[in-house]
Amino acid sequence: MSMSRLTPERTDELYAATLRLLAEVGYDKLTMDRIAEETRSSKATLYRQWGSKEALVVAAIDADAPAVPESVDTGTLRGDLMALLEALPRDDDRDIALAAAILHACKSHPSLAQSFNDRVVATRVQVVTTVVDRAIARGEVAADNPAIPFVVPTLIGPAILREALTGEQCGPDYFIEILDAVLLPALGVTPPTTP
Amino acid sequence: MSMSRLTPERTDELYAATLRLLAEVGYDKLTMDRIAEETRSSKATLYRQWGSKEALVVAAIDADAPAVPESVDTGTLRGDLMALLEALPRDDDRDIALAAAILHACKSHPSLAQSFNDRVVATRVQVVTTVVDRAIARGEVAADNPAIPFVVPTLIGPAILREALTGEQCGPDYFIEILDAVLLPALGVTPPTTP
Repeated sequence: MSMSRLTPERTDELYAATLRLLAEVGYDKLTMDRIAEETRSSKATLYRQWGSKEALVVAAIDADAPAVPESVDTGTLRGDLMALLEALPRDDDRDIALAAAILHACKSHPSLAQSFNDRVVATRVQVVTTVVDRAIARGEVAADNPAIPFVVPTLIGPAILREALTGEQCGPDYFIEILDAVLLPALGVTPPTTP
Repeated sequence: MSMSRLTPERTDELYAATLRLLAEVGYDKLTMDRIAEETRSSKATLYRQWGSKEALVVAAIDADAPAVPESVDTGTLRGDLMALLEALPRDDDRDIALAAAILHACKSHPSLAQSFNDRVVATRVQVVTTVVDRAIARGEVAADNPAIPFVVPTLIGPAILREALTGEQCGPDYFIEILDAVLLPALGVTPPTTP
């Protein structure tokens, strides 16, 4: 399936419409017919380009999710994680209805869940794993430190809870606070002293 | 508003129906009429008992949310937090659609959000705050440890992320792992050595 048939702008429009409909009606009621109608495109085009509703939805989610730098290597774990966190969008207007629709759909469609994890989650977790592995190789973090499996959950989980409870978007500053106050001390890395 | 007019069983039925409808149709489309119809009760009874849809919904959420022991005092921070975590239900079948409906409704109804935070969240956070304050008073945790504001987010956030991504319920064991691997080290408390 070549992407060359659609311009990037047109692809973005189709992704945006897919996510808007997903948040509105949920995965089960979302149909290729409806997306085609909404975007004045043909169902044949959608199937030719993405092959299935599942593939279109996962591609749309992946394109919408914050990108992470492919590789960072600042020489310290804190520097690397800061670089990843600073790359997060500051004024992203993530839609909790969309997140809920995705997670709800994943619960009842294991193949969607698998594909969402492989394409959207795993690729982003991998970047963090690489950075932590490098810190272990440098001797900055002990290879058997029990906090290692919790690096991503400790960085991301609190922000999800806070956004859910307050409705406020967490910017990079919140993640950096957690990094210095909780994660680095748990990993045995001394964060810089704040003035 | 006296609660004596309804039996506890009947109250539980009304709460269950309210939460089921909330997950199904969302807060905005949830009406007292619909709840009355669904539970074969009268709208007058619902208003007499709870006063408003908002009050009924928050009472139903509060009754459904895991209870925390009113006071624990084992002599150590780890003992106290373990006691709180062990009291979490092990086979709770929380519904992500319900959680999503609640959070979505809170986003557009500030008064519901306030009442949800005051009644459901704040009372549970307060129990943890008391336990941490006691650890500070005992000299177990330094009063200026930067991880103190993140005790609840660090314990709860990772589980929310994990449940969302895997669809699997986290039992007390997962929380205890986070406690020993991340939170206690960040607070400068040495967790017991595992064999």
